[in-house]
Amino acid sequence: MSLLTIGTVAFDAIETPFGKTGKILGGAGTFIGLSASKLVDKVNIVSVVGEDFPIEYIKIMEDHGIDTKGLQVKRGGKTFFWSGRYDMDMNNRETLDTKLNVLENFDPIVPDEYQNCDYLMLGSLLPTTQKKVIERLWKRPKLIVLDTMNFWMDLMMPVLKETLTMVDVLCINDSEARQLSQEYSLVKAAKVIMAMGPKYLIIKKGEHGALLFHANDVFFAPALPLEDVFDPTGAGDTFAGGFIGYLAATDDISFSNMKRALIHGSALASFAVEKFGTERMVDLTDEEFEERLQQFVELVQFDIKVENAY
Amino acid sequence: MSLLTIGTVAFDAIETPFGKTGKILGGAGTFIGLSASKLVDKVNIVSVVGEDFPIEYIKIMEDHGIDTKGLQVKRGGKTFFWSGRYDMDMNNRETLDTKLNVLENFDPIVPDEYQNCDYLMLGSLLPTTQKKVIERLWKRPKLIVLDTMNFWMDLMMPVLKETLTMVDVLCINDSEARQLSQEYSLVKAAKVIMAMGPKYLIIKKGEHGALLFHANDVFFAPALPLEDVFDPTGAGDTFAGGFIGYLAATDDISFSNMKRALIHGSALASFAVEKFGTERMVDLTDEEFEERLQQFVELVQFDIKVENAY
Repeated sequence: MSLLTIGTVAFDAIETPFGKTGKILGGAGTFIGLSASKLVDKVNIVSVVGEDFPIEYIKIMEDHGIDTKGLQVKRGGKTFFWSGRYDMDMNNRETLDTKLNVLENFDPIVPDEYQNCDYLMLGSLLPTTQKKVIERLWKRPKLIVLDTMNFWMDLMMPVLKETLTMVDVLCINDSEARQLSQEYSLVKAAKVIMAMGPKYLIIKKGEHGALLFHANDVFFAPALPLEDVFDPTGAGDTFAGGFIGYLAATDDISFSNMKRALIHGSALASFAVEKFGTERMVDLTDEEFEERLQQFVELVQFDIKVENAY
Repeated sequence: MSLLTIGTVAFDAIETPFGKTGKILGGAGTFIGLSASKLVDKVNIVSVVGEDFPIEYIKIMEDHGIDTKGLQVKRGGKTFFWSGRYDMDMNNRETLDTKLNVLENFDPIVPDEYQNCDYLMLGSLLPTTQKKVIERLWKRPKLIVLDTMNFWMDLMMPVLKETLTMVDVLCINDSEARQLSQEYSLVKAAKVIMAMGPKYLIIKKGEHGALLFHANDVFFAPALPLEDVFDPTGAGDTFAGGFIGYLAATDDISFSNMKRALIHGSALASFAVEKFGTERMVDLTDEEFEERLQQFVELVQFDIKVENAY
């Protein structure tokens, strides 16, 4: 089934306890695309870069199943730039610099060939832009997933809340869930947020896994315990890309299939953090991915038949 | 199979965002006993209290399957007292007061009827006392589980390390694992710690679940997402009590049975935090416990056959 994503295509500059990069390929849209394309043949992307964006990066995207017809290249414009630093606790990061550049006046034009998409992934971006994309689609997709972050909550909460009424799944981290709901308990936060519109809520907890809420159901997907988390940049986007990529590939939006989708997302995210930026995702083989999925099965599966457990 | 535990029997005074208690029944040994006795008929305990310890508390323990023959009552002595405060992040607590009292010169006398135990749970206590109990047993138990904490690492690391060479399973939390191993990554920490003696390592992560390491295997048991964590005091001991209680009840120390034991421990711990102190564990019915186990199954179980997942 056809999958459309919007999200930033960017330059990142990253510092971790393990090292420091120059300007490298990054952006939510990039990570979502690289991840989802491990599961579906083609990911259509609507995004924007400046004329400083290297043709090699576009080639990397194309070579990995990302269709870049919807990627606008702005003459005289500069690509969105983010720079950040992580300490040993990779769950916390400090933003050193953000330059919106071409993102500021980005008009998300959806090419006709991208219309009638079945699955829509709205990567973290201005909520106004996310809303505009939904409104521009000729028909409503079967499933709309939205990712956002504290930055947009701080700046544009009213339009973000409007946009939330239009989506099926919201994907945010634990501190964002607390900010959005004004509740500390994630179970309470989930109830408040689902009343805002999304019928499904994914709360990402970084190295502590992710929770999926729907009505009274809850599912927990673990993160794989890793020797080293080298660079967590893009892990959340990779997770979201794997989630929607699996749903689009199987075309099944039941809760039990969403569980499987979450595990696929977690497995892909566990690779993203092994090297700087997109490096590991670009190299990832199908064999490695299958092996990692098996590790997730072994990590959490147990056999308890409750009626005769003791 | 017979189960012996040592661990504090204490007075606790607790402050949380939800309220404040006076002196109530607490202690690692108490929580371990109340938890394990949901799974085995009898838990033998070796511990000590002062003459200020109310007979009603001893009755609560006896009524819940804890044999108190090994519980010494010290004439003129005062019971171990701990007081602490939690903020909204229940993973962090501040100790307001600790009075070792009768614990300071505690000589752990093992009654003859407690000898030849098959399972030994060494609750968090002076490592010298834990070591003494192992040495006083006529035969080595089938499985020895040791729990400890940062307090004992700060004060008595050398004897703690000696004691670790004598046990099978070490049960500590994530920050304690980092302190003991001097490694930040829990996967690396596990390797360092298992080289110190214990063949199995459980790392408790509070609301983020628990990990079980053994050789190259790792298993993750989730914590149940709760509306409110009312009071986390004793959750780790309740978890450990459920773990060893299940192993003693089933008399099977295979890795796959340890997984089940971990889930039972997690389920019991999820009750312990619902009310102050031991209150919820004392009221807990078998039906509630079975229902909670079923919730754990639903929380993490998914069906992915890796060979044809996509």
